[in-house]
Amino acid sequence: MLFHVRMNVHLPKDMPTAQADEIKAKEKAYFQKLQQDKVWRHIWRITGQYSNISIFDVESNQALHDLLQGLPLYPYMTLDIMPLNRHPSSIYDDDR
Amino acid sequence: MLFHVRMNVHLPKDMPTAQADEIKAKEKAYFQKLQQDKVWRHIWRITGQYSNISIFDVESNQALHDLLQGLPLYPYMTLDIMPLNRHPSSIYDDDR
Amino acid sequence: MLFHVRMNVHLPKDMPTAQADEIKAKEKAYFQKLQQDKVWRHIWRITGQYSNISIFDVESNQALHDLLQGLPLYPYMTLDIMPLNRHPSSIYDDDR
Amino acid sequence: MLFHVRMNVHLPKDMPTAQADEIKAKEKAYFQKLQQDKVWRHIWRITGQYSNISIFDVESNQALHDLLQGLPLYPYMTLDIMPLNRHPSSIYDDDR
Amino acid sequence: MLFHVRMNVHLPKDMPTAQADEIKAKEKAYFQKLQQDKVWRHIWRITGQYSNISIFDVESNQALHDLLQGLPLYPYMTLDIMPLNRHPSSIYDDDR
Amino acid sequence: MLFHVRMNVHLPKDMPTAQADEIKAKEKAYFQKLQQDKVWRHIWRITGQYSNISIFDVESNQALHDLLQGLPLYPYMTLDIMPLNRHPSSIYDDDR
Amino acid sequence: MLFHVRMNVHLPKDMPTAQADEIKAKEKAYFQKLQQDKVWRHIWRITGQYSNISIFDVESNQALHDLLQGLPLYPYMTLDIMPLNRHPSSIYDDDR
Amino acid sequence: MLFHVRMNVHLPKDMPTAQADEIKAKEKAYFQKLQQDKVWRHIWRITGQYSNISIFDVESNQALHDLLQGLPLYPYMTLDIMPLNRHPSSIYDDDR
Amino acid sequence: MLFHVRMNVHLPKDMPTAQADEIKAKEKAYFQKLQQDKVWRHIWRITGQYSNISIFDVESNQALHDLLQGLPLYPYMTLDIMPLNRHPSSIYDDDR
Amino acid sequence: MLFHVRMNVHLPKDMPTAQADEIKAKEKAYFQKLQQDKVWRHIWRITGQYSNISIFDVESNQALHDLLQGLPLYPYMTLDIMPLNRHPSSIYDDDR
Repeated sequence: MLFHVRMNVHLPKDMPTAQADEIKAKEKAYFQKLQQDKVWRHIWRITGQYSNISIFDVESNQALHDLLQGLPLYPYMTLDIMPLNRHPSSIYDDDR
Repeated sequence: MLFHVRMNVHLPKDMPTAQADEIKAKEKAYFQKLQQDKVWRHIWRITGQYSNISIFDVESNQALHDLLQGLPLYPYMTLDIMPLNRHPSSIYDDDR
Repeated sequence: MLFHVRMNVHLPKDMPTAQADEIKAKEKAYFQKLQQDKVWRHIWRITGQYSNISIFDVESNQALHDLLQGLPLYPYMTLDIMPLNRHPSSIYDDDR
Repeated sequence: MLFHVRMNVHLPKDMPTAQADEIKAKEKAYFQKLQQDKVWRHIWRITGQYSNISIFDVESNQALHDLLQGLPLYPYMTLDIMPLNRHPSSIYDDDR
Repeated sequence: MLFHVRMNVHLPKDMPTAQADEIKAKEKAYFQKLQQDKVWRHIWRITGQYSNISIFDVESNQALHDLLQGLPLYPYMTLDIMPLNRHPSSIYDDDR
Repeated sequence: MLFHVRMNVHLPKDMPTAQADEIKAKEKAYFQKLQQDKVWRHIWRITGQYSNISIFDVESNQALHDLLQGLPLYPYMTLDIMPLNRHPSSIYDDDR
Repeated sequence: MLFHVRMNVHLPKDMPTAQADEIKAKEKAYFQKLQQDKVWRHIWRITGQYSNISIFDVESNQALHDLLQGLPLYPYMTLDIMPLNRHPSSIYDDDR
Repeated sequence: MLFHVRMNVHLPKDMPTAQADEIKAKEKAYFQKLQQDKVWRHIWRITGQYSNISIFDVESNQALHDLLQGLPLYPYMTLDIMPLNRHPSSIYDDDR
Repeated sequence: MLFHVRMNVHLPKDMPTAQADEIKAKEKAYFQKLQQDKVWRHIWRITGQYSNISIFDVESNQALHDLLQGLPLYPYMTLDIMPLNRHPSSIYDDDR
Repeated sequence: MLFHVRMNVHLPKDMPTAQADEIKAKEKAYFQKLQQDKVWRHIWRITGQYSNISIFDVESNQALHDLLQGLPLYPYMTLDIMPLNRHPSSIYDDDR
């Protein structure tokens, strides 16, 4: 089941670089594990912003909630979430 | 080059069904041609809305403009458009 | 899986009463069937408005989309949709 | 008498964990007492957010105000409140 | 129990004067009956607008909903509704 | 001359309790003096919020400005202000 | 007593030119009478818009309401109204 | 050439009184010099707010920018700026 | 003196094609005359929208107002207007 | 390929002047290099604001993103970005 998520990251300007780097490294590892599991189906950077558009494929709303709350950057994000479903005209298997 | 487009369709309530069906049939043909050409890379319906989220892969802003203006439903749409680029953590070839 | 939906109804002021009554009668029958099936779990009128708050329990985003599109009043509604999940402190079975 | 309340929680990022845990434990106890009394009729987490949707059944506006002001997390919340009433088509006793 | 209601009236510009006058006369009679019953406790015009601020004293949300739906101008209004309760510093009996 | 004022209070979370109590005590005294003088004609708490709706009866815009600026809580408030006038259908002397 | 009013005019596109001209002529006469009486103290066009900024000097909110309702263009306007008072640093008599 | 400017002042609550008084004294002197030069043509306080409405008469956009940037309170202001021009119905020389 | 203008065009869907073509032809001629006079300094289409961003170089606010009101498409446009001035770091003569 | 970017700068009020000056000097050098390369095609100050309107001519969305992220003031900016393309009526080579 697909969800469209926009994540906007706001790191405090006075966070020490070492701490920021550590959080980002954890975030990347967490993210790539979910990519390999085909759960975090897509991610794109919004040009010029510290924001991304992501597509998730999860079992349930609960699974999405747990996944998002586990993000190392979660305390520094605002999130917009929309459920998606297959478009009737699509010819791609990938978009369902 | 990737763009994120949200399309919201507002057909007039008094449009004759035959006319609406003809526009939608043209739209579907136009759309599937662009899918086969790998230009309209993704499309999803937003759950519960007459709106979709689409990802386009085009040569230029001009190409995107011409493509969107050619949509049979274009006169009945509002559009939100954002340029995207590859996310540095992505492991998928597909997301660039 | 639970979803929170706000429906705002806008019937055209010039719709003949007989037509409005027929749509509302179909809507009520459609609605009560879904209540009996435990799919439309809750509905409340927002005081003073021609709007309601509904809680749906469905299999998937697709199921919610199909259900909403089937509403006789759907062409006259705007809809706000949010996925929900169980609150960790809840003691009610009913809220999961 | 029913009210629909959305609560958004914003704990300061520099609140010590022990203090946050103590507030949350008090909140949970306060909440479960009100659940057992059938006053806090429903609560759901909004997927991906530190926000909930709650339905209260209270005697009066004053009773709702006193209850909300007593929440241990109240100083860290923003609240949206809407009065509700029974939907004429509902077949559930629970929704009045 | 008190409620604060803002009513904004939008009569269609092409409504015949006779019809508008008849609706307004019915509205005035309906309103003054509720004033005499101490239910419509206050009403003020917002300077320069076809809008008013009203204070209602009703038994329940349901009573408020029924009262508002019965307004002859209801189909031509938008409404903003807020529950109120006594302010702890007030010395007036009238404000509870 | 009547004005409708919404006051939203935002005390800093780190204000010492003694200081907050002192400001609130001054506010209450200031307020009750104005009530007795029939200048602060009404006040209601908005249910669930640290906000009130007030009706003032003053000589002029200048008098309202001076009165509001004198509020001990003024530095911690945002204010929405609307001029009001008598509603033509009102039967109450009190509402002019 | 001074008020700041922004008026935005929206004449229906299908209003016959003769009717529009007649309304505008009445508006101009009404306006210039109020200018000569020093009630409509200032008026400026907002560059590029069919909107103006006006300053009124009136006895009361009621006087402002009656004046605005009497505008021949009133049914085709939206209005934003703010009470003003003298700025303590002003050296002009004209600005009180 | 006329411009309509709304200035909203937000002094930090922890600014020492002496510093605030010094800035305000400089602001007043700066302002009155511009009044005498007929550049700052009007200023009014918005009732109940720490905001003003000002009308400037300047040679060019550049002149307005330089003037505003020179305000001692500029770092503590937000500004809304609209170009104005003479209203065709105005009979006052002063409003051009 | 430079101004930044965004123009959004909304032609009625039921305007006959011949009438729309005639307006557009007049608009183009009007526009190209102003380009040759170096008054309409730049124009770009916003990708995917029936909107443009334009830069005007005019003598005064009044000159801009007259120019915009003369646009054949003016009755079908909404306009956002901002005064601009030279950026202190710019090395281009063209941007002043 | 052209993009329209609005940059709003928010330097913290407590940033030491020397640090602010150093960042601004780096920004100016970075900016003028891009001007000379014809990448940063235009820049204008928005009158009265610490904001600018810029036009960029870049190879791709990715190039724009990298350029913007490299701005010394980037951590202190909010950015609004819109893709542009040639307007069909333009006679200037410069606007494509």
